[in-house]
Amino acid sequence: MRAAQFFISTLKEAPAEAELPSHKLMLRAGLIKRLASGLYSWMPMGLRVLRKVEAVVREEMNRAGSVELLMPSVQPAELWQESGRWEFYGKELLRMKDRHDRDFCYGPTHEEVVTDIVRKEINSYKQLPKNFFQVQTKFRDEVRPRFGVMRAREFVMKDAYSFHTDFDSLVETYNGMYQAYCNVFNRLGLKFRAVAADTGSIGGTGSHEFQVLADSGEDLIAYCPDSDYAANIELAEALAPAAPRAAATAAMQTVVTPNVKTIAQLVDFLKVDIRQTVKAVVVESDTDEPVLMMVRGDHELNEVKAEKIAGIKKPLTMATPAAIRDAFGAQPGSLGPVGFKGRVIADRTVAAMADMVVGANRDDEHLTGVNFGRDCAEAEVADIRNVVAGDPSPCGKGTLALCRGIEVGHVFQLRTKYAEPLSCNYLDRDGKLKPMEMGCYGIGVSRIVGAAIEQGHDERGIVFTDAMAPFTVVIVPMGYGRSELVRAAADKLHDELAALGIDVLLDDRDERPGVLLADSELLGIPHRVVIGERGLADGKVEYQGRRDASATAIDVAQIAAHLRASIAC
Amino acid sequence: MRAAQFFISTLKEAPAEAELPSHKLMLRAGLIKRLASGLYSWMPMGLRVLRKVEAVVREEMNRAGSVELLMPSVQPAELWQESGRWEFYGKELLRMKDRHDRDFCYGPTHEEVVTDIVRKEINSYKQLPKNFFQVQTKFRDEVRPRFGVMRAREFVMKDAYSFHTDFDSLVETYNGMYQAYCNVFNRLGLKFRAVAADTGSIGGTGSHEFQVLADSGEDLIAYCPDSDYAANIELAEALAPAAPRAAATAAMQTVVTPNVKTIAQLVDFLKVDIRQTVKAVVVESDTDEPVLMMVRGDHELNEVKAEKIAGIKKPLTMATPAAIRDAFGAQPGSLGPVGFKGRVIADRTVAAMADMVVGANRDDEHLTGVNFGRDCAEAEVADIRNVVAGDPSPCGKGTLALCRGIEVGHVFQLRTKYAEPLSCNYLDRDGKLKPMEMGCYGIGVSRIVGAAIEQGHDERGIVFTDAMAPFTVVIVPMGYGRSELVRAAADKLHDELAALGIDVLLDDRDERPGVLLADSELLGIPHRVVIGERGLADGKVEYQGRRDASATAIDVAQIAAHLRASIAC
Repeated sequence: MRAAQFFISTLKEAPAEAELPSHKLMLRAGLIKRLASGLYSWMPMGLRVLRKVEAVVREEMNRAGSVELLMPSVQPAELWQESGRWEFYGKELLRMKDRHDRDFCYGPTHEEVVTDIVRKEINSYKQLPKNFFQVQTKFRDEVRPRFGVMRAREFVMKDAYSFHTDFDSLVETYNGMYQAYCNVFNRLGLKFRAVAADTGSIGGTGSHEFQVLADSGEDLIAYCPDSDYAANIELAEALAPAAPRAAATAAMQTVVTPNVKTIAQLVDFLKVDIRQTVKAVVVESDTDEPVLMMVRGDHELNEVKAEKIAGIKKPLTMATPAAIRDAFGAQPGSLGPVGFKGRVIADRTVAAMADMVVGANRDDEHLTGVNFGRDCAEAEVADIRNVVAGDPSPCGKGTLALCRGIEVGHVFQLRTKYAEPLSCNYLDRDGKLKPMEMGCYGIGVSRIVGAAIEQGHDERGIVFTDAMAPFTVVIVPMGYGRSELVRAAADKLHDELAALGIDVLLDDRDERPGVLLADSELLGIPHRVVIGERGLADGKVEYQGRRDASATAIDVAQIAAHLRASIAC
Repeated sequence: MRAAQFFISTLKEAPAEAELPSHKLMLRAGLIKRLASGLYSWMPMGLRVLRKVEAVVREEMNRAGSVELLMPSVQPAELWQESGRWEFYGKELLRMKDRHDRDFCYGPTHEEVVTDIVRKEINSYKQLPKNFFQVQTKFRDEVRPRFGVMRAREFVMKDAYSFHTDFDSLVETYNGMYQAYCNVFNRLGLKFRAVAADTGSIGGTGSHEFQVLADSGEDLIAYCPDSDYAANIELAEALAPAAPRAAATAAMQTVVTPNVKTIAQLVDFLKVDIRQTVKAVVVESDTDEPVLMMVRGDHELNEVKAEKIAGIKKPLTMATPAAIRDAFGAQPGSLGPVGFKGRVIADRTVAAMADMVVGANRDDEHLTGVNFGRDCAEAEVADIRNVVAGDPSPCGKGTLALCRGIEVGHVFQLRTKYAEPLSCNYLDRDGKLKPMEMGCYGIGVSRIVGAAIEQGHDERGIVFTDAMAPFTVVIVPMGYGRSELVRAAADKLHDELAALGIDVLLDDRDERPGVLLADSELLGIPHRVVIGERGLADGKVEYQGRRDASATAIDVAQIAAHLRASIAC
């Protein structure tokens, strides 16, 4: 492709609206153009990237045995009423009325439509399992669209749905799709983690999120660098310390701690190691009795874990100051287990502590040298804290690290969540009508582009992998318009690479060399060949990979072979 | 592809909703599935066809120098208000409000959005011309959606838009796109005509429609079988007869014609040749004077042509009975030029008639032997009739034939219709700001599938061309599940063809041979190989093209080469 026949439109500065690096760079590089809040046009340069992602996703879906179809984007309300989501989905669902005043929505997802197709098309166990996918434009009317294509309202998604006679079959397909997703992100050259996840509003059981690692990610992930263990912080298990509880060495003593309300103040005031202190949180229970939860001073209570404990009120609710005073005789800031007659739950780490510093259950007083069994009863023990970096990994193979991620894929075991309300049944071998087991599998195709740039960029612009770059090679001629020699060499190399099936851009625009070089870096094109008269005089051109610190002179005769060898396939 | 890993779902009978052959066959063959009125899912088999059309369109657009982008389907009302179409477009525009109560629509077309992009991106004559296209899902809220994908509400369209400094540049791109459209329809193997067309509601000047020829088409087309001349019936020119007017041979006579109101009754009553009679139509003018228009008895007035004549009221309006009696002294049924003092316009054919039979301007009386110049003044002469089959073609190369067509493409010269209201201007060489000239070019990608089936089907099902078929070759094994021999031969041929890059379907479903054979014909797969034990014993398989009356035995060793040679590339 020649730039003059294409459309390159770069900007020196990103519009003020953009916050994230990827959003700024996509606007500056002219990959996208804003139409309205959360609505972007994919400009020619950006569309090439989007299509490359789409092609990889499609290939891996085909390989995984999913069959492609295309459902309408506009969906009748009746199906959503059948599933119960017409009410449930809220304002994210873009609703509309047609000319006959009938209700429709712009599909944000297609469980209802695909289930409607399957209940009409499939009625016997002999036709199962089946797995369908589509690549489609979807719409979610986000409260606050932002980050460009990463949280746009209109976006491109690959969504797949599988149908099964039983759970074992669902798990088999789920595992196949999980592997296909790993293949997609590996092929695109992305650093990612598949993390165990809650199923959230879509319901069902069993789910993994695929997170592209990036500092700006909205999700916090715990992972083991020495294995493939990864989980959202909400789900990552904090193991009990390996060492047993040490013996008590100090007597329990009361210390007056005026105006000390926080762990930080306590540590500062008493000059103790924060790891000797205990944080007390009082929550409501299913009965009216408040429950004391204890985590080490430097740890955080994990509300998702705490809420799952039997007898604890859901959603997790903090006890009121009045209830706390009634039960403990003190205000928050001076609470502890000593003398408290109610239920006490200690985090696994706390359960292994000796000589603890805790609240005295008297305002402005704390106790030091507190030990379970001696000064207060042994507590119930549970994992109720967030993991921290350095915790032993639940996989047993090292210690956990934390990072941020951008969710680009999600696989769910929906079970019969949709099949039951929509009566998507099949006749089993035994002649009985049963609801189908169902899985669903989504990839944010357009979001991947943003996430990849979030992961791959530097101060000069985007750094695309070979698999995602709009062009794999850019030829930058120094003086295409004024040097016959340069023009002939550039044209020849362009045609040679194109004939090899390499996506090559010849930047024949009538711009200063500095502009062409800067644009090639801003656009993130992985391989660059600069052709100038001086080099040609010695039979050389300059090759530079996008991540290389400097250029290398290569023989003109060798450059095509050099590029071929450099490009990842 | 193996059928067991794909999804085939055929029906014996089409649902009652379907009227046209293509709609019935698409439902029966399982290419599409209805979701709601005018909303269809493209099932796996149908999507393969749609994607093949899309790929050909994309290739030809790229070849024509159009650059692909992708604009949002949801568009803000503000842009449509700027162009004036928010009011004008009516109920076909699906409107919606987002969560912040702002107005949007689901784009039925993208002139506004692309013009907004171009006015922001392009400001100099140096950047022009530019030509952009996209392949996208669009929505038109049709009053009465019908004919399946041919008049669906949600559909896939390729729309392109070009921008220019001047009209010459527009015409050059227009001609290039016209040629690209011919390439698309030729490559798809469709019989089509490019016909001169009115620009209709989209406005502008200069337009051609691309019509796929089919008996069920909604549009009537006149074309010359001996050239590429074609025009919508509204625009096709009726030439003057080659022979000059004959001399008068009869005297004018009054005949009493009681209750004769129509040409058919007149011919029947007087036993004259219909080609001697003249039909009189009285229309309103810009002044209050009625105008008499005359076409030969067997011809039809063309209202589009009649309305274009200077002084005639637009839209064309028939004179009231009272006005006619005032001006002619008689009722419709007995009107004619003799004695009428007002404006008379004769069709070119009428102007060359002698010894005419016309109304006498007295109720229940006609005149025979009427001649211009002798019995009444010479009339104004104009082309005001529809052409009929056998008329000389305006191209001068033969006679016209009539046929019906389905519009699948349309190219327009929009000129500055959108550039002016949206201020899409450029700075010209002379330093002046000027509005851009603009063209737009649409292809109904999903409609093409219906139109192709309308053109290609027989009593057994669809007849796809090689270019559009979901699979080019189907292998039908007789007893895949019970004969090792058949299975091995079928598997081998499947793998061999797949390795050659041929789209092959191995129908390994556990169904009776009759079902497999019938499905292969219903699906319209162009090339079929039947493999059975009896044939294999002689080293033969049976080949049959979808249009062939019978099968041919081919050596197993030769079948792949035979298919390769049979498939159009």
